[in-house]
Amino acid sequence: MTPSAQIERTLSPEAFLAAEVSDFLQAMGIVTVHLQASPGAGKTCLIMRTIENLGSQLRMAAIQGTLSRQPGPSPLEALDVPTVRVNTRGQSYLDAGMLRESLEQLPLADIDLLLIEEIGTLTCLPEHVLREKLRVVITSLPEGEDCPSRYPEPFAHADAIVLNKLDLLPHLGFDRRRFHQAVRQVNANAPILELSCRTGEGLEAWCHWLMERLELVV
Amino acid sequence: MTPSAQIERTLSPEAFLAAEVSDFLQAMGIVTVHLQASPGAGKTCLIMRTIENLGSQLRMAAIQGTLSRQPGPSPLEALDVPTVRVNTRGQSYLDAGMLRESLEQLPLADIDLLLIEEIGTLTCLPEHVLREKLRVVITSLPEGEDCPSRYPEPFAHADAIVLNKLDLLPHLGFDRRRFHQAVRQVNANAPILELSCRTGEGLEAWCHWLMERLELVV
Repeated sequence: MTPSAQIERTLSPEAFLAAEVSDFLQAMGIVTVHLQASPGAGKTCLIMRTIENLGSQLRMAAIQGTLSRQPGPSPLEALDVPTVRVNTRGQSYLDAGMLRESLEQLPLADIDLLLIEEIGTLTCLPEHVLREKLRVVITSLPEGEDCPSRYPEPFAHADAIVLNKLDLLPHLGFDRRRFHQAVRQVNANAPILELSCRTGEGLEAWCHWLMERLELVV
Repeated sequence: MTPSAQIERTLSPEAFLAAEVSDFLQAMGIVTVHLQASPGAGKTCLIMRTIENLGSQLRMAAIQGTLSRQPGPSPLEALDVPTVRVNTRGQSYLDAGMLRESLEQLPLADIDLLLIEEIGTLTCLPEHVLREKLRVVITSLPEGEDCPSRYPEPFAHADAIVLNKLDLLPHLGFDRRRFHQAVRQVNANAPILELSCRTGEGLEAWCHWLMERLELVV
């Protein structure tokens, strides 16, 4: 693992390690997608639906951050996808050291797409902590349409913004236009993908976006 | 402000400041309640309902942590309650220094109860960061019944656990018994208060608990 000479000179030890791991993954042909969201917004669900929908086209694996004291088996294991759970020991984000250790437990030669599920939080992450290829933020209707204004940093740096739990729309006073406006105040370009992991509505557009970004759509 | 000599010797500068602020508030007769929850779980709503329900019996004020780049007026201002918003500048929790600065903007002689709204997160807070009198964790039905297992630390240290958005029960597959079990695995004693800030259901029990803990219930 040797990070590009251009950035080598100016990085902190943490950022240097992140660059090293990122370069290694790129050399292996593995694309990383980092998913950040509040607790309960649907990170694991979206990963499961992604595996169900794209499992025949992509070889996937997952790394899941957890704060749980006794994590049981991951729901992802039922989908026969290589999965590593990482207890961050109280730290509120995954770092490159944890990522590197997790990689040792994965069949790297057989992976196209590595889904990295962050600890549930919308607070800031340290800059360039993982140097992932794609950043996705998931929020959900119960969190309110002003969530992007109240927790701007993850939204500002996202490549795509997923709005989950669309099936709850009839039961919540959620103003989609206000949500879009709140997103656009911090992020001018990232697509906003509205969906429901529960009903499957909108999942096709999410999968299409993902495949397109992976440059696999013809 | 002079913290008790007993703890003075062993504390870090941060913990020393927290003890100092805590002692000062106690001397002023002000009780602090610290509310921690995920984004959108209902911290601000619960504070509003508390003010509406107990405003005639208690003189209240609020400090609200925010990560918002341009926070508009707080919804609490409409309730004519002294409120200070604190931008933590990316830090994912309020610290004693921020609390001390906020106090300078509040009419301390006219406050019985100070409600401190944390940044929206269920990740660990540094130990004794605020030395508040009461800690309350709010979670909500959309976050799932296993939330206390996945984010155990706030639940483990809470004096009360509020389960909000009870009005969504008919629309979500939420198992209350599993939720209670998950809470009890990390916290044996704290009361679990189920309520809906939207409909008002369960608010009476919350207010009763709060008044009782404030030793104001006859």
